[in-house]
Amino acid sequence: MAHTGTHSQPVRSCLLLVVVSVCVQQVHGVWPLPQQLHQSADRGCLSPQRFSFTYGRDSAAQTGCSVLDAAFKRYFSIIFPDFTKGSGLLQYVWSEPQPFVVSVSVKTGGCDGYPDEDSDESYNLSVSEGQAVLRSVTVWGALRGLESFSQLVYQDDYGSYFINKTEIVDFPRFAFRGLLLDTSRHYLPLHAILKTLDAMAYSKFNVFHWHIVDDPSFPYQSRTFPDLSNKGAFHPFTHIYTQSDVMRVIEHARMRGIRVVPEFDSPGHTQSWGKGQPGLLTPCYKGGVPSGSFGPVDPTIDTTYKFMESLLKEVKFVFPDSYVHLGGDEVSFACWQSNPNVRKFMEKMGFGKDFTKLESFYMESIMNMTAALNRTSIVWQDVFDYHERPRSKYVVEVWKQGCYLCEMRRVTKAGLKVILAAPFYLDLPIPTHSWARYYIVRHLAFRVQRTEEQKKLVIGGEVAMWGEYVDATNLTPRLWPRACAAAERLWSNEEKTLNADLAFPRLEEFRCELLRRGIQAEPLFVGHCKHEYDGL
Amino acid sequence: MAHTGTHSQPVRSCLLLVVVSVCVQQVHGVWPLPQQLHQSADRGCLSPQRFSFTYGRDSAAQTGCSVLDAAFKRYFSIIFPDFTKGSGLLQYVWSEPQPFVVSVSVKTGGCDGYPDEDSDESYNLSVSEGQAVLRSVTVWGALRGLESFSQLVYQDDYGSYFINKTEIVDFPRFAFRGLLLDTSRHYLPLHAILKTLDAMAYSKFNVFHWHIVDDPSFPYQSRTFPDLSNKGAFHPFTHIYTQSDVMRVIEHARMRGIRVVPEFDSPGHTQSWGKGQPGLLTPCYKGGVPSGSFGPVDPTIDTTYKFMESLLKEVKFVFPDSYVHLGGDEVSFACWQSNPNVRKFMEKMGFGKDFTKLESFYMESIMNMTAALNRTSIVWQDVFDYHERPRSKYVVEVWKQGCYLCEMRRVTKAGLKVILAAPFYLDLPIPTHSWARYYIVRHLAFRVQRTEEQKKLVIGGEVAMWGEYVDATNLTPRLWPRACAAAERLWSNEEKTLNADLAFPRLEEFRCELLRRGIQAEPLFVGHCKHEYDGL
Repeated sequence: MAHTGTHSQPVRSCLLLVVVSVCVQQVHGVWPLPQQLHQSADRGCLSPQRFSFTYGRDSAAQTGCSVLDAAFKRYFSIIFPDFTKGSGLLQYVWSEPQPFVVSVSVKTGGCDGYPDEDSDESYNLSVSEGQAVLRSVTVWGALRGLESFSQLVYQDDYGSYFINKTEIVDFPRFAFRGLLLDTSRHYLPLHAILKTLDAMAYSKFNVFHWHIVDDPSFPYQSRTFPDLSNKGAFHPFTHIYTQSDVMRVIEHARMRGIRVVPEFDSPGHTQSWGKGQPGLLTPCYKGGVPSGSFGPVDPTIDTTYKFMESLLKEVKFVFPDSYVHLGGDEVSFACWQSNPNVRKFMEKMGFGKDFTKLESFYMESIMNMTAALNRTSIVWQDVFDYHERPRSKYVVEVWKQGCYLCEMRRVTKAGLKVILAAPFYLDLPIPTHSWARYYIVRHLAFRVQRTEEQKKLVIGGEVAMWGEYVDATNLTPRLWPRACAAAERLWSNEEKTLNADLAFPRLEEFRCELLRRGIQAEPLFVGHCKHEYDGL
Repeated sequence: MAHTGTHSQPVRSCLLLVVVSVCVQQVHGVWPLPQQLHQSADRGCLSPQRFSFTYGRDSAAQTGCSVLDAAFKRYFSIIFPDFTKGSGLLQYVWSEPQPFVVSVSVKTGGCDGYPDEDSDESYNLSVSEGQAVLRSVTVWGALRGLESFSQLVYQDDYGSYFINKTEIVDFPRFAFRGLLLDTSRHYLPLHAILKTLDAMAYSKFNVFHWHIVDDPSFPYQSRTFPDLSNKGAFHPFTHIYTQSDVMRVIEHARMRGIRVVPEFDSPGHTQSWGKGQPGLLTPCYKGGVPSGSFGPVDPTIDTTYKFMESLLKEVKFVFPDSYVHLGGDEVSFACWQSNPNVRKFMEKMGFGKDFTKLESFYMESIMNMTAALNRTSIVWQDVFDYHERPRSKYVVEVWKQGCYLCEMRRVTKAGLKVILAAPFYLDLPIPTHSWARYYIVRHLAFRVQRTEEQKKLVIGGEVAMWGEYVDATNLTPRLWPRACAAAERLWSNEEKTLNADLAFPRLEEFRCELLRRGIQAEPLFVGHCKHEYDGL
């Protein structure tokens, strides 16, 4: 009989509340803030027993669409976490809840493709009595709309589910809304990465920048060069990403409309590469003889370029995205300088004593390889700084503190696309409320010498979670909810999201929603959530 | 047959390694550093099938000793986490591992008592071929010795267990080694508190300072005043500690030799008390009329003292420890000043305009109540600062930044015991390596005017994890391993633990051991552990 009570009660209270709904004004927000959102106090009742997602008749995607079929299933359990068939049937028998149908229509199909830089993520959502209509151009837009819909549903103290009449017209401000994870300084177990992708989707991030290897370790198990992880990973079996791990990440991301952009950072940050690829790194000299230590990749020998070409071929084969991050940051020239062969090469090439020319030479070469593989290169701003007259087109990621807007002006003036990461470094622990500072970031506040075209070259931004002090033990609370604030600045209308004080209560509410979804998001300040984190 | 392989292999490798043990110098450390530790490269092999704890013949405690019986069971699973009966029996049948017996002898019994400020925690541990002998005065000392023993055991890559010949003579530097949790600014689920007690025992902390209530919420469910939590908690059912929750915490702590010192902070920090106890707080006035807001506890009316006396009686009944923390910090005088009745009372008492006299009057009164209940009062340093000539004896907790050593000199000069918390505030997130700063803290570096007796009044220190930015989502990684560094400074020989660089590799190793025990301790820097955290 406890059974009876628990299941019939929500329904009773639901009917009751529907009657008085007009005077109850409980409106739930959406994070990040949609471009246009109109809500009324009128609300309808949802019950898991009579709730369904369906494809609109005119939709190009229909049942069998891998991305949306999976999304329907996923969002059903997100919206009704404590729903079980057993209780459902009982409740169905003893009451007549209203049906509620979410009809989804997309213009184009593409259910088996991957999101890319040109993907249209816009959607329109209209919620009324007993139904919601979601319209988008692509399945990726439909995913954003389903996320917004799931955030509109709320529960009262009796457990009944409600949604208010709502009209949303929404699209992202920037096409590139990235999050960087560093799996070299600490190894992140596969499930930590998948969980991060889940949380990214809740905030409408759409690029996972996988800083997969670096000096400390090489966890990527290459099919072409297995020794790279055999000898360069923290452990050749327990601390690596197999090909199937990588495929799982890519597919998990695709299902959420997230691109996976791998970074193979060179010529610096490659100490771990040297262990499995003898001859790749530059031998450093001391007193005219090799010191036994190694520097950046050796840019003076053919074998280096042969190796990079095979590696990039594999990367193209494994990672479907059109972008590949080639790094190019923080190259120390000391070792190159110490090496006689490198100095000879500099003379031969007429680089004089300017090692930035040597790095540019190397980067140009691997960017050309990348272009030949039909991939777009992203590089850290260092590469642009060394070489402001680029022969080839590439995307510049601005990461250095200081006047990042000046840098963006220079980059866009040179006609290159730019991504802003500098103000969104989340790796060093700072007070949680530091999220507020993301609300003063103005991507486009630089003066343009030429046309407004220049500003169109700012394609987005990225939060960077470097791994020095972060692994699976503290990744999630350090990322969330701070990253949500950056996500809103990248998706929403800038003018409507310049005030951190207005954002605070919304972010607090969204953080509680993340807890309810099992994301270990840390608190912003004193307070509590109805559903506290209990995953300990 | 997979079964066979996995179980017979460890034994083979074990026998093999025993032979070469002399040339293998793998010595495992103990955290915090014991007062005296001598280890040799000789090591013996342990196998869960032939391992046992037993009571020495001359031991005052024997089977049936609640604390040690439970500790034997607990440490067996800590030492052999992946041991299961099934595999054990198999391995037993197919090989003849050597037996290993840990014999524990305590001078006094007291298995059913509670640890207190005078508990002797010293122990001697001698590990030799096939056996270990642990001697202590009390069961609490035996617990510290068992913890050290468990840290001496290590596994090789084949999963075999080893321990080196070791001699340990150990005792704590300070009797009071506390950790504060704040369950008012955020509610901490019971299991988060129990998990913290587990981790405390691993670092030999011995006092859980439970800052159980404060302004934001009153989660303690009082039997005398149920409305305090009914109306003052974040939620009267989901965000409270019932009497049985509190009993569980106290017993879980007792089993680990940890005291539970509750803090009922007044007269300030009591906003949440007012909700369930009308008339307790001072009504603030504005323009000669009550403003509707309330200030600190009203120290001018009898009902206040009647209430505090009943509450303290209950606290004495519920919490067995001889210490009670009465707070007394950060009292704002503005509201008292605004209230005409308070001003009248000030005149009557001849306090003039000095509200510190009023606070001292209040604190003296409740400290007298506490003394009458045979309890020792701890208060924050503010109380001492207001009133340097204390009539009664109490313990002062120094928390203010700045010259905390000057404060300790003053307090001890006044003949009062002191606990140092100021340098051990862990609540605000700062880079993890901030643990290093705990290695420059010198409790006793103040100049004494009188005798060395004065320094004996420094009874210990405490790490404080305030709750503004901390709840179950981030408590553990923010506490550990940083708190371990403070724990070592409170337990170990100061001269041997002044160098953070020497401590670093030991702390890194201990952090990996915490992960192995399921404590979500965050990384200190780039690297990895054999057993990464996988509790996500």
